[in-house]
Amino acid sequence: MTYKLLLLPGDGIGPEVLESTKRVLGWYKAKRGFAYTTEEDLVGGISYETHGSPATDAMMEKAKAADAILFGAVGGPQWDKLPFDKKPERGLLRLRGDLGLFANLRPALCFDALKDASTLKPEIVSGLDILIVRELTGGVYFGQPKELVTLQNGEKRAVDTQIYYTHEIERIARVAFELARLRSGRVASAEKSNVMVTGVLWREVVHKIHETEYPDIQLSDILADNCAMQLVRAPKTLDVILTDNLFGDILSDEAAQLTGSIGMLPSASLGAKTADGRQPGFYEPIHGSAPDIAGKDLANPIATLLSFGMCLRYSFGRVEDARLLDKAVENVLAEGYRTGDIMQPGMTKVGTTAMTDAILKAL
Amino acid sequence: MTYKLLLLPGDGIGPEVLESTKRVLGWYKAKRGFAYTTEEDLVGGISYETHGSPATDAMMEKAKAADAILFGAVGGPQWDKLPFDKKPERGLLRLRGDLGLFANLRPALCFDALKDASTLKPEIVSGLDILIVRELTGGVYFGQPKELVTLQNGEKRAVDTQIYYTHEIERIARVAFELARLRSGRVASAEKSNVMVTGVLWREVVHKIHETEYPDIQLSDILADNCAMQLVRAPKTLDVILTDNLFGDILSDEAAQLTGSIGMLPSASLGAKTADGRQPGFYEPIHGSAPDIAGKDLANPIATLLSFGMCLRYSFGRVEDARLLDKAVENVLAEGYRTGDIMQPGMTKVGTTAMTDAILKAL
Ligand SMILES: CC(C)[C@H](C(=O)O)[C@@H](O)C(=O)O
Ligand SMILES: CC(C)[C@H](C(=O)O)[C@@H](O)C(=O)O
Repeated sequence: MTYKLLLLPGDGIGPEVLESTKRVLGWYKAKRGFAYTTEEDLVGGISYETHGSPATDAMMEKAKAADAILFGAVGGPQWDKLPFDKKPERGLLRLRGDLGLFANLRPALCFDALKDASTLKPEIVSGLDILIVRELTGGVYFGQPKELVTLQNGEKRAVDTQIYYTHEIERIARVAFELARLRSGRVASAEKSNVMVTGVLWREVVHKIHETEYPDIQLSDILADNCAMQLVRAPKTLDVILTDNLFGDILSDEAAQLTGSIGMLPSASLGAKTADGRQPGFYEPIHGSAPDIAGKDLANPIATLLSFGMCLRYSFGRVEDARLLDKAVENVLAEGYRTGDIMQPGMTKVGTTAMTDAILKAL
Repeated sequence: MTYKLLLLPGDGIGPEVLESTKRVLGWYKAKRGFAYTTEEDLVGGISYETHGSPATDAMMEKAKAADAILFGAVGGPQWDKLPFDKKPERGLLRLRGDLGLFANLRPALCFDALKDASTLKPEIVSGLDILIVRELTGGVYFGQPKELVTLQNGEKRAVDTQIYYTHEIERIARVAFELARLRSGRVASAEKSNVMVTGVLWREVVHKIHETEYPDIQLSDILADNCAMQLVRAPKTLDVILTDNLFGDILSDEAAQLTGSIGMLPSASLGAKTADGRQPGFYEPIHGSAPDIAGKDLANPIATLLSFGMCLRYSFGRVEDARLLDKAVENVLAEGYRTGDIMQPGMTKVGTTAMTDAILKAL
């Protein structure tokens, strides 16, 4: 079987980190019999510059036809003043929405070699391994009405709507419980059921799925504000965190930062299986487009490479191949190679290309 | 002038920490000519048990007539299963809404004596002094519709609505800019203008107020998810954080936890000046009702006492009196007194009463 991959480098450091990925893809083709073809297209600010839209219909067609999508990053200060629906981020949100990528998996892992890079005490974060399961196609990101109107008295009123349906919560809860079975068997479900009725429904549905389908899993409820505290106070008490789109956005960034290794963290966004048995898979680094270092061979390619690792695992079931990549990354860190973002005294500072060379060598 | 104070101890450790406050109030009456009368009433779970409602109309009348309200905490596991509008938290939310307490000030201060209690490295948090200015009567907490409906197909749909009007953003922005003038002159405004139109309006209005009324202040925009990261990465780069109700809930808990001193942190919620020149003021500790240690003389009274300090400052303009209290707290910490939550090796462990004794002595 030959897999169809769509590469969407996007803006900022996106092209550089996807260039690294292409080289690693080549290695998997040559050495591990991983057969694929690639297409490449524009998304985000660069797509707006070229086509006047951050996500064209033609690009969306390619995305729908692909077996997996490898994404870089979108955004940059030059597009800050664009109208809401032209902003680079809308490209990413259209992909999530139109492909139905409802399950966003964001590991927050503290790499042993980097535990001193965290602003938290090493004993608090060493060995940290949290998986945030974030609902990605519902909530306030997509709910209608979402509108900005000018009233008769000259004032403006802005409205965003958070909506959740039973089935949206059921399917993301199942993803979290399934993943918990492969890990510690524990899920913490984060919401604001004391203030939001979406939180009330969230809690109710998560408990129903838990009782009827996953009684073997240990489920706890945690208010989102308390979760933000626990992540700082005792992050290792958390394992799988199941949460909605908006809380997931904030809590996953907080969790990623705890590890001190945000340039290392990958993510996967998965959709529901389609009628023909395929499952949309979308892979991107947690970090953003970092316009300040773009084009200078300074970016850390590891988050993007590990995102390809998640692709091997989740889209293609090639667990052994994914492990090889994890191992190679561990090895180059152990050998002392560091990009600027994770540089430590006494280590060897390298750029994007040299880091990729080292990983290819370690493979 | 004799001030009318309403004491609302609420649930859990609320009664104990307000008991401490009463003793300190007595000291201010005897030694500093601070003239007041107090009334006391129920709120939260205890009010539900007694009256069937977490906030009665009679209590609300007293709250409206008071010059300031000293609040303990609400909530506990025994009320978790109550319907949404009977939950203890609704008592607090009714007070905020009906009194128009739109400006919530939450300092996140790292006490020097406690900097080793933080899970963050001491050099990251020592001297940390952030002030979160959270909008408290708008956004998703109060927007309509807020509803949970069962659809024809048996599914449920939950809806929460985040609404902001120009004037709501203007007035909270002014509070943040005014406070910044008394501090570093810097404000970071946190929103999700890349996803939420309330965030778009938020940014627009904050900039308009900044340009026309506070050009001397240094304003920066920060996305809420990025703010959650910066709080962990480099909290001392932040000073005043201006944000909405929901983001403020999460970011202020995260910030409080960074300091390692959450049992020490006060808050103030202020309303608009009324026609007769009065301004509603509501003072409560950041920590919650801690039902697990309630009634055991274990609670740390300092957050509640410092909330009374904020009351002296913001409701009554008695800055010198507030400083005395700050100083007394610093002194007892320097002398080594610690409640359980902030206990450190070699220090003297005390309960609520003994800590209050020590503070009275230091005063
Ligand atoms: C770029 C932005 C729209 C996006 C989000 O808010 O979801 C980002 O912060 C993320 O978490 O992937
Ligand atoms: C108790 C709860 C309703 C409240 C809130 O969400 O605002 C609390 O978390 C707070 O921050 O004061």
